[in-house]
Amino acid sequence: MRAQETLAQDARLIDAALPHYLPSVAEQAGSLGPAMRHSLEGGKRLRGVIVGRAAATFGLAPPAVMPTACAFEMLHAATLVHDDLPAIDNSSLRRGRPSCHIAFDEPTALLAGDALIIAAFRALAEQGLQGRVRPALRVVAEFAELTGAAGLIGGEQADILGERLEPDLALVRYIHENKTAKLICGACRAGAILAGAPGPGLQAISDYGMKLGLLFQITDDLLDVVGDQEAMGKPTGADQAAGKQTYPAALGLEAARREAAGLAQEAADLGAQLPAEVEFWTGLTQLVVNRDK
Amino acid sequence: MRAQETLAQDARLIDAALPHYLPSVAEQAGSLGPAMRHSLEGGKRLRGVIVGRAAATFGLAPPAVMPTACAFEMLHAATLVHDDLPAIDNSSLRRGRPSCHIAFDEPTALLAGDALIIAAFRALAEQGLQGRVRPALRVVAEFAELTGAAGLIGGEQADILGERLEPDLALVRYIHENKTAKLICGACRAGAILAGAPGPGLQAISDYGMKLGLLFQITDDLLDVVGDQEAMGKPTGADQAAGKQTYPAALGLEAARREAAGLAQEAADLGAQLPAEVEFWTGLTQLVVNRDK
Repeated sequence: MRAQETLAQDARLIDAALPHYLPSVAEQAGSLGPAMRHSLEGGKRLRGVIVGRAAATFGLAPPAVMPTACAFEMLHAATLVHDDLPAIDNSSLRRGRPSCHIAFDEPTALLAGDALIIAAFRALAEQGLQGRVRPALRVVAEFAELTGAAGLIGGEQADILGERLEPDLALVRYIHENKTAKLICGACRAGAILAGAPGPGLQAISDYGMKLGLLFQITDDLLDVVGDQEAMGKPTGADQAAGKQTYPAALGLEAARREAAGLAQEAADLGAQLPAEVEFWTGLTQLVVNRDK
Repeated sequence: MRAQETLAQDARLIDAALPHYLPSVAEQAGSLGPAMRHSLEGGKRLRGVIVGRAAATFGLAPPAVMPTACAFEMLHAATLVHDDLPAIDNSSLRRGRPSCHIAFDEPTALLAGDALIIAAFRALAEQGLQGRVRPALRVVAEFAELTGAAGLIGGEQADILGERLEPDLALVRYIHENKTAKLICGACRAGAILAGAPGPGLQAISDYGMKLGLLFQITDDLLDVVGDQEAMGKPTGADQAAGKQTYPAALGLEAARREAAGLAQEAADLGAQLPAEVEFWTGLTQLVVNRDK
């Protein structure tokens, strides 16, 4: 099956599974539950699908790691909700729909983001309670490391601070690695760890994931410059308006495109050497580099 | 040893251990690390101490559960940071010092709160990686349940919504149980689970913890009415000004005091039946009911 079809098919399974990993919210908590569901709707499920396919690469069927796939999607959604708040990016549009704090209100969006972070860890624990206790605990530890202040959240803070600085390629790389690439690399690693991948296999899929993650963020930078707002489901031109640290800002548009093409090739080469799901991994690099949203 | 001395001694150990469970934050992330440390300073460490003493109650020395004790303190600090933000309580003073978003800024406080939630789960995973894998994973699952949208975060949302409603005792109870009591009860349970407490023992310390947690929140309500701002380290009178759902608002001051006295007695009776650390558990109820901060 072509990567695009695998992605679409697996994404539908994740869409169907996500509600099972959301807590039952009491009526006294008002719109908290609806705000969490709103924030989860409409994603491409790239990170969740990667968790499943990484498991398949090492012999475990994707449905067996569904709790972990959903955890990656919930954490990702939480960061978007908090990023969109007025205190950070003040974005009113996300995935083609009103951002959480526009559809609900600021306190609800703040708390829904917190609750989604926590629900992600609940799902990771559920993965362990279903068996594979030690690998699941290792995934909890890695997930917390790569999403916390030494990873994703640190990258977001640097992204905000970077708006006040001149474009700087080393800083762009720090931000992209931490804010974006580590979570995508972590999705590769989580599936592989749960499937019991041997050390060299885990390293190989980590290397692939890091390249893919950087590629994903560079194409995001490029789409902000040349993309179509309607296809993206969020405003374009926002990076430049905010003075964000991006590859096009640091290198220029053409050099950023060459960087993306180079990364796509490196990732495809690494993907081709993985023990299974090769069509998916190599095809995914092409999907990412050619994406329009 | 008297409960007050145990509390002070164990709190010092937690103060010393907390930095070990904070991630190393890159310089590119600016004040994120300092903001996390700022937010952890000055707490009473009640929840962390309870984790250790609950372990001791079932035969495991408190230092053995230090990662979990620190996790409870980090999650608690995170909720205070987000609560104090302008979008929620807009409080500029906390633990006698500027709130995180005053000492730093709003985006930093928002992200520091997120990072502290995530660091809490990292510490819980560390507990499991040190051994006791299955109990630690059970604690991750319970911690996520009691702090998430079906627990603490749900209680916070109800607390905000309740400002627009007439005082209602059933709603006050929902808020207090979820926003405060579940985390204190969870601290009792976590220590006991890690120590391998048998089912009836775990139930007994859970019942104690829930009573103590409710007592803690009612005395918090009372201190907001009759307490000393300097001793409290935060503004008093804020609940009434905001129209918060509190026991004094729903029942009147005298009835709220009687409720607190009754809960203190019930908790002390339950604490007296625990298999060890009885002086601590019974003394703690008196410390909470008589506290001035």
